[in-house]
Amino acid sequence: VAMRPRKSLYPLVSYEAALSTVMAHADTLLPAHMSIDNPRELVGSVLAEDVAAQEAVPGYRASIVDGYAVVASDGPGEYPVIAGSIAGGGARINLQKGQIARVATGAPVPAGANAVVMVENTSLIKASDDGTVEEIVQLHETAAEGQNIREIGSDIAIGEDILQKGSLITPSEIGVLASVGVTQVLAIRKPVVGLLSTGNEVVEAKTPGPIPYGVIRDSNRPTLAAAVKVAGFDSIDLGIAPDSAEELAKIIRKGLDQADVLVTTGGVSMGELDLLKPVLERALGATIHFGRVLLKPGKPTTFATIPGTDGGRRKLIFALPGNPVSASVTFYLFVLPALRKMAGYSDPILPVVRAELADTIQLDPSRPEFHRAHIAIAPSSGHQGTRLVAYSTGSQRSSRMVSMRGANALLKMPAGTQGRMEVAQGEVVDAVLIGQLG
Amino acid sequence: VAMRPRKSLYPLVSYEAALSTVMAHADTLLPAHMSIDNPRELVGSVLAEDVAAQEAVPGYRASIVDGYAVVASDGPGEYPVIAGSIAGGGARINLQKGQIARVATGAPVPAGANAVVMVENTSLIKASDDGTVEEIVQLHETAAEGQNIREIGSDIAIGEDILQKGSLITPSEIGVLASVGVTQVLAIRKPVVGLLSTGNEVVEAKTPGPIPYGVIRDSNRPTLAAAVKVAGFDSIDLGIAPDSAEELAKIIRKGLDQADVLVTTGGVSMGELDLLKPVLERALGATIHFGRVLLKPGKPTTFATIPGTDGGRRKLIFALPGNPVSASVTFYLFVLPALRKMAGYSDPILPVVRAELADTIQLDPSRPEFHRAHIAIAPSSGHQGTRLVAYSTGSQRSSRMVSMRGANALLKMPAGTQGRMEVAQGEVVDAVLIGQLG
Ligand SMILES: [Mg+2]
Ligand SMILES: [Mg+2]
Repeated sequence: VAMRPRKSLYPLVSYEAALSTVMAHADTLLPAHMSIDNPRELVGSVLAEDVAAQEAVPGYRASIVDGYAVVASDGPGEYPVIAGSIAGGGARINLQKGQIARVATGAPVPAGANAVVMVENTSLIKASDDGTVEEIVQLHETAAEGQNIREIGSDIAIGEDILQKGSLITPSEIGVLASVGVTQVLAIRKPVVGLLSTGNEVVEAKTPGPIPYGVIRDSNRPTLAAAVKVAGFDSIDLGIAPDSAEELAKIIRKGLDQADVLVTTGGVSMGELDLLKPVLERALGATIHFGRVLLKPGKPTTFATIPGTDGGRRKLIFALPGNPVSASVTFYLFVLPALRKMAGYSDPILPVVRAELADTIQLDPSRPEFHRAHIAIAPSSGHQGTRLVAYSTGSQRSSRMVSMRGANALLKMPAGTQGRMEVAQGEVVDAVLIGQLG
Repeated sequence: VAMRPRKSLYPLVSYEAALSTVMAHADTLLPAHMSIDNPRELVGSVLAEDVAAQEAVPGYRASIVDGYAVVASDGPGEYPVIAGSIAGGGARINLQKGQIARVATGAPVPAGANAVVMVENTSLIKASDDGTVEEIVQLHETAAEGQNIREIGSDIAIGEDILQKGSLITPSEIGVLASVGVTQVLAIRKPVVGLLSTGNEVVEAKTPGPIPYGVIRDSNRPTLAAAVKVAGFDSIDLGIAPDSAEELAKIIRKGLDQADVLVTTGGVSMGELDLLKPVLERALGATIHFGRVLLKPGKPTTFATIPGTDGGRRKLIFALPGNPVSASVTFYLFVLPALRKMAGYSDPILPVVRAELADTIQLDPSRPEFHRAHIAIAPSSGHQGTRLVAYSTGSQRSSRMVSMRGANALLKMPAGTQGRMEVAQGEVVDAVLIGQLG
């Protein structure tokens, strides 16, 4: 204990360098067959193959409107109605010149017809005596050939690539697959995240109060589990590990058996019970790529990898600081981009927008800071471009979880200098989007 | 059949008027107790009460760093180390003037101490003979009173409102609740959506091919179920109803027993089998608020309400067009804002941004059009404001589901006029965000 180093042995790396290192080690996972019946798995996955249509849409010549199938060259005038073609098909009709047939929206257009006249452009001339059947209808317009007909395959042709390898599957892509009867696709497996909190002082968040002196509730696992879920990924709860090298090594080993990415919180400061780094290196043979980042909050953020077994992908380990804000911020800055890269996203880094400060923000003289803020879309109708305004969430202390309340962005503030101690209200800064706009 | 009206009896209302009508009839649902253990339910819900902290954070004076608890007035110099305070508590220590105590990040600061000096600003002077215990340590700095100490309740004070009524619960709000041991909150119940497809010609999307002549696969339920889920709500699958007034009324009645909002697709055109409107009005006693909207796609969009039973909220019924693009677009334009209002969102309307056109877009002369597009954040570092660029998804035919592929926005294009038949590349338009940016 007495002989521990009094300065960290890990060099401080920049946020940019740290993020590059993470991205360089996050490999895209292997593809798996996924069923369209499991949207929970499929939505948010990335296609690992081009998908071609095995059938045409529409599969028959379909009417775009409710009206009458006609022979276009017949022109306006009164015509006998020979039949009705309703949606759902029924018998195939063959229309002759001088005849017309009722057709409903989406219903097959009879053979022989080459246009459809909308019902609004027609009049009933003669009905059957009981009033149930149209016998003669007048067309008011000259139909153009092909008018109001969707030809076979005109929406999707057979063999057409309907979705491309690398596409992110959203509800719309599910609709495209469903429309041609594709029931299964090959998509990149999404990474599974193991979540572990550490520290003798940490107890489950739901422990009935009052809690003992010196003890804190674990808000990190509930927060990160929700954040992983909102991002479309699944997590495994590995519980709370005590400050014991043996216990930590055991739980981490177990976690790495089940998860692709392990996220721990706590145990990365400079106290004698900050065991994460030594356990990762010595007990688990992991390679620590960085152990400190010049960043506020999140300076002790640690990133390590361990080789995969049986030809599997290497596993990523993020040992995040225990302070709840630090843990959340570094999750969004480093873990989530890695998860998106592993899931095959073409743009795994979270989007960065430009936002105007609603408040003057003091700069930290020692480190660049990711300042929590709520970004709102400002009214700008008629203007060029979108105005985004960033409202600070207040005091940014890294233990102060309420500074994450309502935050949908992290403002990238530079370290202060003698010449520049603040960024003034109205100035524009880069902001990482961590939640929804609006 | 012959006697059916040849023009729709429903007046064409504007998109703006239709949306106002929907919002006026979407009432916020009643609150329910929700557990923090069920993030699936809780995330995306809106708080129905102010939540006050029942305990302070931190609950004890906590060190912000690894270092030594000191009496600030003692100043720099060599001091005996009387004890260590590690995270997790242990015995309470009482520090006297002239003494210092080891403290770890997050650990209690001993009574009597009023500052903590970081380990980096100290040197070991004397250790025990076996090298395990620090006996004398030199402090290099003059500590300021209160330095590196989080006072009790300085992050969250007892009784402080940590979350306010009306707040949307995201992962960060879960963290705030967890940090003070709140396990249950009162939040607005989220609406449940019943999804029903209609039409004799419609078969399940997963029907093994080839499908019979005149038949189409139902892509609407899979698409809308995924869209409801991505928006954070739950849906009930009511299947496919045939074009029979009796069957429709039966299934809709059953759906309304289980769901707060019923969404049907198909059956709202002008064919003889378009039975939704008459069934809603005559068989179910619903009030149709509008039956047509001056909108492309989505003109036949129909909105109705039916009184709630047993003092419950009135139920909303959206009878959307059957064309897959029309169904998706009108879901985002009308249904999703209603769901968000019912769930208590303070800004239920989807966010609207300004985006530059990457392509020249032809205007439809008859109707305003919501043109599907992918909006990308354009590099604008160093510039004022955020540049968003909208890429058209191509041909916008309402049956062409591939026009929804990759779309995260609906561009609001006006109807064309003689003087203005297109909006040119580089011009800026309003865009409704229906998916994530970036
Ligand atoms: Mg610890
Ligand atoms: Mg129909």
